[in-house]
Amino acid sequence: MERSLEKVFNPGSIAVIGASEVPGKAAERRTRSLIQGGYKGNIYLVNPKRDKLFGMKAYHSITEVDKEIDLVMIIVAPRFLASAVADSVKMGAKGIIIITAGLGETGEEGKKIEAEILSEAAKTGAYVIGPNCSGMFNASADINMLGIPTINKGSISVLTQSGNVIDSLTHFATIKGCGFNKMINVGNAVGVQLHEYITYLKDDPDTKVIATYLEGIKGGHELVRVARDAAKTKPIIALKVGKSSAGARAAASHTGSLAGDDIILDAAFRQAGIVRVSNADELVDMAAVFSNCPIPKGNRLVIMSEGGGDNSIAADNAEKYEMQVPILSEETQEKMIPILLAGMPAHNPIDYGGTAEENPDVITQCVKTCMEDDQVDGILITGFFGGFFDIIAPHIAALEEQTAKDLADLVKKYKKPLIVNTSYARDPIKSLGILKEAGIPVIESSDRAAQCMSALMHFAVNQKKIKEMHIPEEKVVERAGVKELFRKVTAESRHNLLETESRELLSEYGVSLPAAELAKTPVEAVEAADRLGYPLAMKVVSPDILHKSDAGGIKLNLSNANQVRAAFEVIMKNAGKVAPRENIVGTLLSPMVPPGQECIIGMIRDAQFGPVIMFGLGGIFVEVLKDVSFRVAPLADEDIDEMIREIKGYKILTGVRGEKAKDIEAIKGVLAKLSEIVIDNPEINELDLNPVIVHEKGLSIVDSRVLIG
Amino acid sequence: MERSLEKVFNPGSIAVIGASEVPGKAAERRTRSLIQGGYKGNIYLVNPKRDKLFGMKAYHSITEVDKEIDLVMIIVAPRFLASAVADSVKMGAKGIIIITAGLGETGEEGKKIEAEILSEAAKTGAYVIGPNCSGMFNASADINMLGIPTINKGSISVLTQSGNVIDSLTHFATIKGCGFNKMINVGNAVGVQLHEYITYLKDDPDTKVIATYLEGIKGGHELVRVARDAAKTKPIIALKVGKSSAGARAAASHTGSLAGDDIILDAAFRQAGIVRVSNADELVDMAAVFSNCPIPKGNRLVIMSEGGGDNSIAADNAEKYEMQVPILSEETQEKMIPILLAGMPAHNPIDYGGTAEENPDVITQCVKTCMEDDQVDGILITGFFGGFFDIIAPHIAALEEQTAKDLADLVKKYKKPLIVNTSYARDPIKSLGILKEAGIPVIESSDRAAQCMSALMHFAVNQKKIKEMHIPEEKVVERAGVKELFRKVTAESRHNLLETESRELLSEYGVSLPAAELAKTPVEAVEAADRLGYPLAMKVVSPDILHKSDAGGIKLNLSNANQVRAAFEVIMKNAGKVAPRENIVGTLLSPMVPPGQECIIGMIRDAQFGPVIMFGLGGIFVEVLKDVSFRVAPLADEDIDEMIREIKGYKILTGVRGEKAKDIEAIKGVLAKLSEIVIDNPEINELDLNPVIVHEKGLSIVDSRVLIG
Repeated sequence: MERSLEKVFNPGSIAVIGASEVPGKAAERRTRSLIQGGYKGNIYLVNPKRDKLFGMKAYHSITEVDKEIDLVMIIVAPRFLASAVADSVKMGAKGIIIITAGLGETGEEGKKIEAEILSEAAKTGAYVIGPNCSGMFNASADINMLGIPTINKGSISVLTQSGNVIDSLTHFATIKGCGFNKMINVGNAVGVQLHEYITYLKDDPDTKVIATYLEGIKGGHELVRVARDAAKTKPIIALKVGKSSAGARAAASHTGSLAGDDIILDAAFRQAGIVRVSNADELVDMAAVFSNCPIPKGNRLVIMSEGGGDNSIAADNAEKYEMQVPILSEETQEKMIPILLAGMPAHNPIDYGGTAEENPDVITQCVKTCMEDDQVDGILITGFFGGFFDIIAPHIAALEEQTAKDLADLVKKYKKPLIVNTSYARDPIKSLGILKEAGIPVIESSDRAAQCMSALMHFAVNQKKIKEMHIPEEKVVERAGVKELFRKVTAESRHNLLETESRELLSEYGVSLPAAELAKTPVEAVEAADRLGYPLAMKVVSPDILHKSDAGGIKLNLSNANQVRAAFEVIMKNAGKVAPRENIVGTLLSPMVPPGQECIIGMIRDAQFGPVIMFGLGGIFVEVLKDVSFRVAPLADEDIDEMIREIKGYKILTGVRGEKAKDIEAIKGVLAKLSEIVIDNPEINELDLNPVIVHEKGLSIVDSRVLIG
Repeated sequence: MERSLEKVFNPGSIAVIGASEVPGKAAERRTRSLIQGGYKGNIYLVNPKRDKLFGMKAYHSITEVDKEIDLVMIIVAPRFLASAVADSVKMGAKGIIIITAGLGETGEEGKKIEAEILSEAAKTGAYVIGPNCSGMFNASADINMLGIPTINKGSISVLTQSGNVIDSLTHFATIKGCGFNKMINVGNAVGVQLHEYITYLKDDPDTKVIATYLEGIKGGHELVRVARDAAKTKPIIALKVGKSSAGARAAASHTGSLAGDDIILDAAFRQAGIVRVSNADELVDMAAVFSNCPIPKGNRLVIMSEGGGDNSIAADNAEKYEMQVPILSEETQEKMIPILLAGMPAHNPIDYGGTAEENPDVITQCVKTCMEDDQVDGILITGFFGGFFDIIAPHIAALEEQTAKDLADLVKKYKKPLIVNTSYARDPIKSLGILKEAGIPVIESSDRAAQCMSALMHFAVNQKKIKEMHIPEEKVVERAGVKELFRKVTAESRHNLLETESRELLSEYGVSLPAAELAKTPVEAVEAADRLGYPLAMKVVSPDILHKSDAGGIKLNLSNANQVRAAFEVIMKNAGKVAPRENIVGTLLSPMVPPGQECIIGMIRDAQFGPVIMFGLGGIFVEVLKDVSFRVAPLADEDIDEMIREIKGYKILTGVRGEKAKDIEAIKGVLAKLSEIVIDNPEINELDLNPVIVHEKGLSIVDSRVLIG
C-alpha cells in the first residue's frame, strides 16, 4: 500500500504554476533551485505569458501538459489560486504546494479562498501544503523547491511554521557540518497538518530525526498521539517559541487558572517523548547528535579529559542536565589504572593528565575500557582533543588522527554514544574531520555537549518507557445516566453542575465519594445527620452560588442536632442574600473527613491539546508555589505515575516530619477514572476535585466542581 | 602611595632563576615568552650551569646581578626553592613568582618548604605568588611569563587556580576576538590571596573586567568584602566549578544541614555582585561583553530583527534570563511606525520584516529611536545582520558596513549596551568587524547573547544597590555578660548552650523573647505558671538532652495547675531515662504562643565564608522544598531584604488564602540582631532559632539552640 504523502515527497513529475525568470523573485528562486537541484523526473513550467523559461518549454496552462502530474507548486496571486488548484487536480496532482501568501493569515477574504482551495482538492483527495509556505526540499529525490541555492544533505528532516527559520537552520547546518533529508514549511497548514507529516516521516527510511520549529500548535491532541508513536523509532526535536507570551488563561476553575499554555505544551511534549529546545542553533546541534549517535541504554555518563578543570566543568554540566556520573566499578577502575599516570583519578571523571597530549592513544584505551563496561551508557571527552598538535608539537597530529580512527571503530563496535567537546571543534583539523565523518559529534561548547548527551540519554529512558506503555484507547463510551444528567443541566441553561450532580457523574464511574445527603428542610437535615453520624459539614446547594465559602454557605464541625438546625437556618439565610429562594436547592451534609494531605485533581479542555489532567498538592502548594503537573488524556499508568512523582512536594506524600505515607495508589485510581470520564464526555470543559484529602488509606473527595460547555 | 602589588605587575626588572633553553621545558617556554614579549625593563637569566642563554649573559646566581631586582620568577627543584627565595629577597625582590610544583599540594614535605619560603619572604614583605603556578602576563608592561606564545591583548584581567584554564581562555579569546590585560595563575596561593589580587585589579586603570576561574575558595569572607567593593566600579565574572561534588555538610543544626557548600557560595557571590558562569567559553564571552559594553541603567530590553521567529526566540530567552521586554511608550511607537512596513509590530519586539535586508539603515533608525527612549536600557538585534549581502545580493555589503558605523556612533553617543546576535558572527565579514572594533558584541548564539545582556542588566541593578548600601562595620564588640556565659559553658566542657543560656545570649542583644521561667520543682512550676498565665508549654532543660521532643521532654497546651504538676513529673521521669539526675536542670515554662507562620532563622560558621546567616519558612518548606536563603554576615539592610524576598514561599508572608500579612519587619529585626551577634562572638559555630512563629504583629522565638566551638 502506498503511503499517504509518498507522492508529495517523491513525485514522478512536478509542475510549477507561476514559474518565473525575474531575478530575485520568490518564484524565480524556487524554479531555479528546483531545476538546478538535479531532480530526475519531468518538470513542467507554467506561465501564461511565456513560451520558454530557463531554456525549457513553458506551458501557458498546466492543462496543456500531456502527462499526469504528481506534484504542483503554485506561486500565483491569490485571486488565481482556486482555478490553479482546480486545474492541478484535473491533471491528477497528488500534492499541491502553495507558496502564495496573503491568504488566511490576512483576513476573511483569504480564508474564503483557502476554503475554495480545499474544496477543489477534496474532489480527488489531493494534499494541500501551505498556503503561505516557503516550499519543500527532499534530498532523496533531489528536489529543492525552497529557493535556497545550497542545502547540505543529511538525515535530518525538518517541519517548520516559519520560512525564515529554514534559512537559519540551513546556515547553521553549513557552519556545523550536518545536513537535511526533507524540509517542508507547513505554512498556514489548511490542508496537511503537522501530525500527518510526522506520520509520514516516522516511517521514512531516509529520515533519522525529525526537527521541527513551531509557533503555535494545531491538532495538539493528535500530535501527542502520533509523536509518542514516532518516539518508539525516531526522535522528534522541537523548537517551540512563545513561552514568554503564553500566560495562564482566564478560567472558572482552579485547574484552569494554573494551566498556562506553555506549561501544558511542555508537559505534552514530555509525555510524547518530544525533545524540546529553545534556539535554532540548539535545534541543529541536537538534531545532528540524534541523527548520528546510537541511542544509549540509560543516563550513566563517563567524563574524561587531560585536565581536572575541564572535568569539573563537565561534571557540573552533567549535574545541570541531570545525568549520572557514577563511580566506575572496581573491575573497570582496575583496568583503567595501568592506562593512566600513577595517582590520576580513574573513578570518573577520568583524568589522563598530560599523557594524552603526547600520546593520544591513552584516550582510545580509556574509551575502550568504558565501552566494555555494561554500567556505562555514554562517554564525553572534553578538553583540547584535535588541538594537541597545536599546543604540544606538529607531529602529534598524526597520532590524533589515528586516535580518531580508533574511536570511530569503538563507537561502531560498541554502539554507545561518544561526544567530543573541544575548543578546536570548528577548526579544519583532520583528526576532527575523521570523527565527524564517523558520526561522532565534535562540539565546541561544553554546555551544549552536555545538553546533547543528556537529551540522548533521557530520550533513551523515555523511549524505553513508551515502548512498554499501554496507552488506553480513545474510545468514547456513552453512559446513559451521565448523558441524561447533562441534558437536564443544559435544558436549565446551566454550565455548572450542582455538587449533587458532580457527585452523580463521579459515582457513575465508580469514583468513591464520602457519604452525603441533600436536605431541603431543617428536619431533613437533622434526620440526615443522624444517619450520617457526627461531626458533620454542611454546604449550600444552589446553581447561583459557585463560591460557597464566600457566600457564607459552608458550616463545619457540626456536632449535634441543634448545631445542624442552626447551621441550616444560617446557610439558607446567607444564601437568600445572593440567590432567589427557588434557586436554593438545599444543603448537602457530609461527615467531617479525617485529616490527611490536601490535594487537587483537575481537568481542563485545552484549545491545543484537548483534555488535560492536573495533579497537585493543595493549599499553598497550588496557590503560592504552583506545584502542579499536567498530562494530556488518555493517561497511561506511566503518565499517572510521572505526574504524581514530578511535583516538588512529592516527598510529602511518601511521609515526612513523622507523618505516615499517604495512599498514592488511591490518587492513581482517581486520576485513571478522571481520564476515562473526560474522554467519554467531551461535554466537560473543566473539572476540579478540590480539596481531595488523601489519608494513609484511601482518600476523601471533599468538594467537586464540573463545568460543561 | 605605591599600590601593593604594583611592582609585581609592573616591575622595573625581572630575573628568572632556573632559566632554560631546553625546548619544550616549562622554564624554556616561559623564559622565551618573556624575552619575546617585548618587556622594556632588564631581564636577568639565572642558571648555575650556563654562561649564556638565548644569546644573553646568564648569571650563575641571582646574587651576582649588580642591580636591584623587582620581580623574580623561580623554576627550580623544590629543594633549591628556599635558598632561591632567600637570594631573591636579598636582591630586593618585591615579588616572587614560583612556578615549581610538587609543594604543598603533594604533602607535608612540600608544606614545610612553603613555610620556609614564606618566612624568607616575610623578612622584607616580598609578595609570594604560587608555588605551583603557571606564571603571569601583563599586556600593559609587555610581560608574558606564561609560556604561551601569543596572547590577545585587551582589557580583561584573569585570576585563575588552574593553568589549563589559561590555555582554554586564551584559545577562546583567539576564537572570539577579545583579549587580556593581566593574567595570573595564583597556584597554591600560600602568599598572595585571591582578594589581594582583586584589591589591586579593582584600581588598575588597564583592567576593565576581572575574570576568574576557581576550584576552591580561600579567604571567602574577605573575598565577599573586597569583591563587593570592587563591584562599585568593576565587574567580576567567576567560573567556580565543583557544584556537582559539593554536598551539604554533616552538621548538628538544622541550618547546617541545609548549608550546602555551593548553595552558600552562590549566595555569597550574588551578595558580592560577582557574576557567576559555568563554562570557559561563557567566561570569555561574558568578560568580553563587560569589557566593551556600557553598563545599563536597568533591565528593560528591546529586541529587533527581520523575522518574527527570531524575535520570538529572543523574547523567550529574555524571559529565561529574567529581563523585561516592555511594550514601548506610545511616543516611541509613533516614532517607530513610519520606519517600519505598514502593519509590522512596533511595540517590542520590533519586526522590520524584509525591509532591513535590502535597506539596513532601517535598523539604525530603529536603534536610534530606542536609544532616545529613557525607558529602554539595552537593545538586542537578532537575525542575520552581516549576512544580508549573502542572502540577498552582494551590493548590500556596503550598506551593512555603513549601518555598522552608524550603530557604533549611536552606542558611543547614547551609552546604552547593544548586542548583535547573528549566525554570521564568526565569519570574516567587514560590517561585523566594524561592530566588533567599536566594542559592540557580535554573538553567534542567541542564548548566549541574551545571557550576556541579562548579566549586564542585572549587574547594573546590583551595582546601584551596592553603591547605596550601608554595610555594617565588622568590628567585634565584646559584651561581658556573653563572654562570661561562654566561659561558664566551656568550663563545663560543653558546646551546646542550654535553652536558658541561649535566651540569655539573645536577651543581651535585645532580641525579644516570649516570657519563660525555669522551674526545678513541681511547686516552682505551678508558681511560675501562675505568673506566666495559661495555657503553657513546658520543656526539659538539660545539657544532655539535645532532642527534647524525642526524649519526651516537651508538653504543650497545659491549662491548669494539675496539668502543670503532672507534666513536670512526666518530663522529669522521661529525662531521667536518658540523663543522670544531676544533669537535669529543670523545666522551662512558657506561655503557648498565638498561631502564625512558622519560620526558621539560623547561622553557621562556614569554612570558606565565615559566619553565614539563613532564613526560611519552617516545616515542609525547609524539610521538603529546602526553600531557604543565605547571606554572609555582616548583613546590610539590603541583604536582609533580599534574603526574605528570594525564598519561593515569600508570598505566604505577605498574606495568601485569606491570611493577613505577617510582620516582616520583625523578621528583619531578628536577622539584623543575629548578624551583630555572630560578628561579635566568633565562639558561636551554629545557631538555630526554630521555630520562629511570625504573627501579624511581632514574632515569637519558640526555641533556640546555640553551639559554640
